[in-house]
Amino acid sequence: MKSLDLIIVGAGIAGVNAAVYAKRSGLTFKIFESKAIGGQLFYMERIDNYLGLKLGTKGRELARSLADSLSGLNIPIESEQVKEVKQQEGVFQVLTNKGQYRSKAVILATGSSFRKLGLTNEVKLTGKGVSYCAVCDGFFFKGKNVAVVGGGNTAVEEALYLSSFAKTVTLIHRRSKLRALEYLSKNLTKKDNVNIIYNHTIKEILGQQQLKGLIIEEVDKGNPRELPLDGLFVAIGSSPNTEICRQLVSTDEKGFITTDSKMKTSNDLVWACGDCRRRPLRQLITAASEGAIASIEVYKKVRQSYLSV
Amino acid sequence: MKSLDLIIVGAGIAGVNAAVYAKRSGLTFKIFESKAIGGQLFYMERIDNYLGLKLGTKGRELARSLADSLSGLNIPIESEQVKEVKQQEGVFQVLTNKGQYRSKAVILATGSSFRKLGLTNEVKLTGKGVSYCAVCDGFFFKGKNVAVVGGGNTAVEEALYLSSFAKTVTLIHRRSKLRALEYLSKNLTKKDNVNIIYNHTIKEILGQQQLKGLIIEEVDKGNPRELPLDGLFVAIGSSPNTEICRQLVSTDEKGFITTDSKMKTSNDLVWACGDCRRRPLRQLITAASEGAIASIEVYKKVRQSYLSV
Repeated sequence: MKSLDLIIVGAGIAGVNAAVYAKRSGLTFKIFESKAIGGQLFYMERIDNYLGLKLGTKGRELARSLADSLSGLNIPIESEQVKEVKQQEGVFQVLTNKGQYRSKAVILATGSSFRKLGLTNEVKLTGKGVSYCAVCDGFFFKGKNVAVVGGGNTAVEEALYLSSFAKTVTLIHRRSKLRALEYLSKNLTKKDNVNIIYNHTIKEILGQQQLKGLIIEEVDKGNPRELPLDGLFVAIGSSPNTEICRQLVSTDEKGFITTDSKMKTSNDLVWACGDCRRRPLRQLITAASEGAIASIEVYKKVRQSYLSV
Repeated sequence: MKSLDLIIVGAGIAGVNAAVYAKRSGLTFKIFESKAIGGQLFYMERIDNYLGLKLGTKGRELARSLADSLSGLNIPIESEQVKEVKQQEGVFQVLTNKGQYRSKAVILATGSSFRKLGLTNEVKLTGKGVSYCAVCDGFFFKGKNVAVVGGGNTAVEEALYLSSFAKTVTLIHRRSKLRALEYLSKNLTKKDNVNIIYNHTIKEILGQQQLKGLIIEEVDKGNPRELPLDGLFVAIGSSPNTEICRQLVSTDEKGFITTDSKMKTSNDLVWACGDCRRRPLRQLITAASEGAIASIEVYKKVRQSYLSV
């Protein structure tokens, strides 16, 4: 079986752009995705932060555009689930639910999943008041009343970010103290429009077509009460989809793949891009950019080693 | 005069996305651009490498979309030419041809200019056979005959890149030896479909609506001859537009601003993004991504120092 130059795992926006640049560079490659092209785009009701798109483009419209780009460039998607990526004698073996493939290099673009509260209405109202990313969706809540649930760095950073333009921000945390870095927590408590509710959890998400509010209750005590709201930001963490490659590359303590600024992992022939990567800013535009960089780096590496043999 | 949080210099795609993210973050800011919104987009006849756009979108269409995003988010462009950026007592003074402004932080997105051959038809046929970027435009020349002019690393890398899918690549260099790194030059000479013409310059670019070929001649000897071609890649260097800020931030030997992976320059309150920055991959999508990262970093810095006072 002949080795491909490259295998790309995942067809969210990072993986798709890696494929576009791999094609343009003349690499031989395959891209694998067991679900729909576009990954988390399907959770995005309205996109205002991807330059070049009309403001308010729907996530599924951008997903369709990605699919159109792939078919326009004659890039097929392999609808197979990657089960394992192994490296043997300098060549990668990629096992899927349908077969086995070989390549000289790998780009991991497997994404991540936001941890969910697990409440009724949560999924249904995602993009309709419920969000997992303040930098992505915060601007839609200008002058409105929002809550953030969580108590770590991300939750406090999201609350700080939102406090610049939301009318009020309520941080709901199940413990009596924030887990975030002290200077972040301090900054938050200084904000006039921020209210922190400790020792509370969310019991119910209210609303049918659009989020209306929450029922929160005190830990161990109950006392449910209603909190009317326009937006809820769930910031209780996210998990990278990196189980298939933990043997292959280094990750941080949460499992996100660590790379250099050119997307190279601890493995000299593996690159990572998008949400599976540890990165400063988790946005569509940064993911797309990272996919491009990864493929051009693969091109340089694989073509140069071809030629220097 | 009250200080703004941020001044953005330049409204190419990097600067525009910095403005979009600054707005979304609730920063007070101005963005300055003395020419049209979109910068070098106006030289791009056809864009196939910006995910989310229809394949073949024209550069000026994307430029219009940038302008629409700005007006949709109520971000005015200040049509003023920035003459100087100075730092005094921790505050930046930005002098334009019309006034003076103050800010706590600066994002430089001033772009760069490709060096041109200076030949008749060169500007007219840009995007119609003449290009300054193989990674951007190379794919349109699949199976065709192209030339690259230059002899440095960029020229040889462009020729290598093109050799993967073009029918033939002719490298035209005015000296008897390439200036590029040896391993690059060696790789190039091994390619079957690459021909290097030393000691020659281009005398004339042929074609009216579309590039047809070149007249080249031998240095000091003449002997003009015609070279029929589908594409010409000019790779004789580019210059960053960084004259206004050389006192403020460190640059590399060519004048490109050096930054860390979060776009911060040597100055703790200045960020740089896009083509004025020294970067691994000069693409529209990477420039847009860098603009977003820069603004979010400014947000973190400026908001945190507000609050910690």
